[in-house]
Amino acid sequence: MSEAEDENTRANEKARKRQEAKAKIMAGKTIEKGLLMVHTGKGKGKSTAAFGLAMRAIGNGFRIGIVQFVKGAWQTGERPVLEMFPDQVEIKAMGEGFTWNTQDRARDIAAATAAWTEAKRMIEAARKDPPDFDLLVLDELNIVLRYDYLDLGEVVEVLKNRPPNLHIVVTGRNAKPELIEAADLVTEMTEVKHPFQAGVKAQKGIEF
Amino acid sequence: MSEAEDENTRANEKARKRQEAKAKIMAGKTIEKGLLMVHTGKGKGKSTAAFGLAMRAIGNGFRIGIVQFVKGAWQTGERPVLEMFPDQVEIKAMGEGFTWNTQDRARDIAAATAAWTEAKRMIEAARKDPPDFDLLVLDELNIVLRYDYLDLGEVVEVLKNRPPNLHIVVTGRNAKPELIEAADLVTEMTEVKHPFQAGVKAQKGIEF
Repeated sequence: MSEAEDENTRANEKARKRQEAKAKIMAGKTIEKGLLMVHTGKGKGKSTAAFGLAMRAIGNGFRIGIVQFVKGAWQTGERPVLEMFPDQVEIKAMGEGFTWNTQDRARDIAAATAAWTEAKRMIEAARKDPPDFDLLVLDELNIVLRYDYLDLGEVVEVLKNRPPNLHIVVTGRNAKPELIEAADLVTEMTEVKHPFQAGVKAQKGIEF
Repeated sequence: MSEAEDENTRANEKARKRQEAKAKIMAGKTIEKGLLMVHTGKGKGKSTAAFGLAMRAIGNGFRIGIVQFVKGAWQTGERPVLEMFPDQVEIKAMGEGFTWNTQDRARDIAAATAAWTEAKRMIEAARKDPPDFDLLVLDELNIVLRYDYLDLGEVVEVLKNRPPNLHIVVTGRNAKPELIEAADLVTEMTEVKHPFQAGVKAQKGIEF
């Protein structure tokens, strides 16, 4: 046997063992249920991955509800694409509400409350048979929780008591420990390197 | 002034200062250029965020090339959505190539090489005026680099010498340090909590 053939044989044997181990692990995973997912951390991709998840869900025939807790968080590029699927996607954006540049806390609390009311309505509508929604995206909910604009205990309770088959994605940095505790899947997006560090500005098609 | 009003006044003043500081930082960010982005880490959302980015780019009228280095990494939910935009999206999937269950290293190397040839063709086509592509997604390229199926030095050189306005996203865990060094934006997706830990299986619409 040549040296290269030998290397391939070893690699193939290693791969076969890895495959067997994986099959054994997966055989134990049998539960199907609606997941509470959290995308947090300071890095990019929290809302973008939620948007990607929503698009994948569209491809699978799901019905999706999106509530934006921070105006402008879902950028210009997303909206026209999501609006191409009016039968599958309902978007509730905060009109004159919380923005990153807020200077009116009382107004922000009112807007956060209004957005949360929409979220609760969608969660209830997911109890119907068939459900009105299979997946909800609560975009930047973590931000308004961080500023204590909503009652954390109530939010966690409502999310925990969601209908069994409803998936919910919550995004935003600084997720509260109580929400992480209640979640099934938590991913932290960590910024390893950012182009702003090199003076590069936010660019159309990429950042918005 | 009541206590609540006082709290709001303080919060608004703090927000105003935050906004001023941000404006000062952003004024220094003036460079526009094609970004080399890397999504790595063991957490979820690496390919999903790249897919979300591709969808946002579609909304902005971009042309997008996607090369899949690992068969099955772009799941069933994505494909039908991307295929709705044939004028804007070109997908090159590896047919009988590398899979997670590989047991044939020689065949995998041939498939990785074929996928890389497609990626290089797209990069060259982005030099045209107007360019054939504004954004490339090289999905799971990190995986084949990790297994040394491609020459790392060559890949990094080609990516560094991309056309100035071409954005490229590379996904996959275990990104090589040389690629991180060459990148403009690197995000690590970290797994904080995963439903497999609780016996929940991969589910349609969410995982694939």
